[in-house]
Amino acid sequence: MRISALSEATGVPVPTLKFYLREGLLHPGEPLSRTRAEYDVTHVQRVHLVRALREIGGLEVGAVSRLLRALEDPQLTRLGAMAAAQEALPPLTAPSVERNDIAEHEGAPHPSRAQALRVEQAWCVDPSDPLLAQLDATLGACATAGLDLGHARLSRYARAARAVAVEDLASVPDDPAAAMRQVVLGTVLLDPVLAILRRLAQRDVANRPNDQPHADTLSERHRND
Amino acid sequence: MRISALSEATGVPVPTLKFYLREGLLHPGEPLSRTRAEYDVTHVQRVHLVRALREIGGLEVGAVSRLLRALEDPQLTRLGAMAAAQEALPPLTAPSVERNDIAEHEGAPHPSRAQALRVEQAWCVDPSDPLLAQLDATLGACATAGLDLGHARLSRYARAARAVAVEDLASVPDDPAAAMRQVVLGTVLLDPVLAILRRLAQRDVANRPNDQPHADTLSERHRND
Repeated sequence: MRISALSEATGVPVPTLKFYLREGLLHPGEPLSRTRAEYDVTHVQRVHLVRALREIGGLEVGAVSRLLRALEDPQLTRLGAMAAAQEALPPLTAPSVERNDIAEHEGAPHPSRAQALRVEQAWCVDPSDPLLAQLDATLGACATAGLDLGHARLSRYARAARAVAVEDLASVPDDPAAAMRQVVLGTVLLDPVLAILRRLAQRDVANRPNDQPHADTLSERHRND
Repeated sequence: MRISALSEATGVPVPTLKFYLREGLLHPGEPLSRTRAEYDVTHVQRVHLVRALREIGGLEVGAVSRLLRALEDPQLTRLGAMAAAQEALPPLTAPSVERNDIAEHEGAPHPSRAQALRVEQAWCVDPSDPLLAQLDATLGACATAGLDLGHARLSRYARAARAVAVEDLASVPDDPAAAMRQVVLGTVLLDPVLAILRRLAQRDVANRPNDQPHADTLSERHRND
């Protein structure tokens, strides 16, 4: 198909497609002449992927470019693909919170809550993983704002997060390229899905009178206590 | 304390405090003279709250202002506080995705996955709740990008989200003002905590060799299947 047909197939305007081509986000088509090229289904798939990473994942063009390059590395492992996806994502806290509060925590006399959680949950995670410092910083900022998560509550959130992560990595296809794609898309695109599900579930819990517990409520509480 | 001491106590520069006062994000101090005022611990708490909503919650000044006004309504219910917090949050998907894909879905012949999930999970949620259309739009965009969540997988994510929501609304203090504060802060500030926990748990799952399952993995899989 020509670039106009690619535009129709994807709903992305021709000037945007030309921008993707210039930035290397989209691989070149088969040249037909000096000014025309032929595109195929791989281009349609790539355009959908770029659009989703930009619009749902909220990634900048540079981050999409780095992520796509990382995905093309034939040596890439499942963990490597996940790490690349995590690094491409915008930071989970505002830069000023990270900078100030991580610095405060590094010199803080009290023990790290993230490290305590890592040990308690028996997570196979490097103790120097920057995500742990980010967790301490975010928890510290929550506490400063007046939201102090007790240890038992944080443990229950960690267990719920692990159930999600097991789902994230389960049922990954055998084909390595398809597996990479699922892992990366799941990491980048599922946060909004999970946040919406959390808000819907909050409405369910809040709407439900106290004397009519949802079937899950008792078993969840029992399992977690 | 004077405004300079308030700045020292909170780590927020004096010009920013004056900006908060002008925008009504911070209540005025007790006037001492035409140009000086006395601030107290309620001002320290409010500054920490505003800073957290801005920097962790990612809220614009206007959204913080609307949220604080909603919290001062003496008629506010727990559900009302949660709805106010949810409305103050930035949209969970980029505006273009919402606009295009919700429009597409409204005219789409296939049944709504969000409505099917609502029925299956027996959620006490209004069928016209805009979060359901937002979920359909986000799932549609994920599928277009090549991430198709099977029904069983989506159900398991919904169950994990409900465990989180039960935690969110459990152990809310008896004092109504404190209860509102916990619900709102939990809604606005916990998304980054949960996203970090999910990434840490993903690393744990990915790092763990297949023959050394985490104690939770088997029980989670068993419970979910």
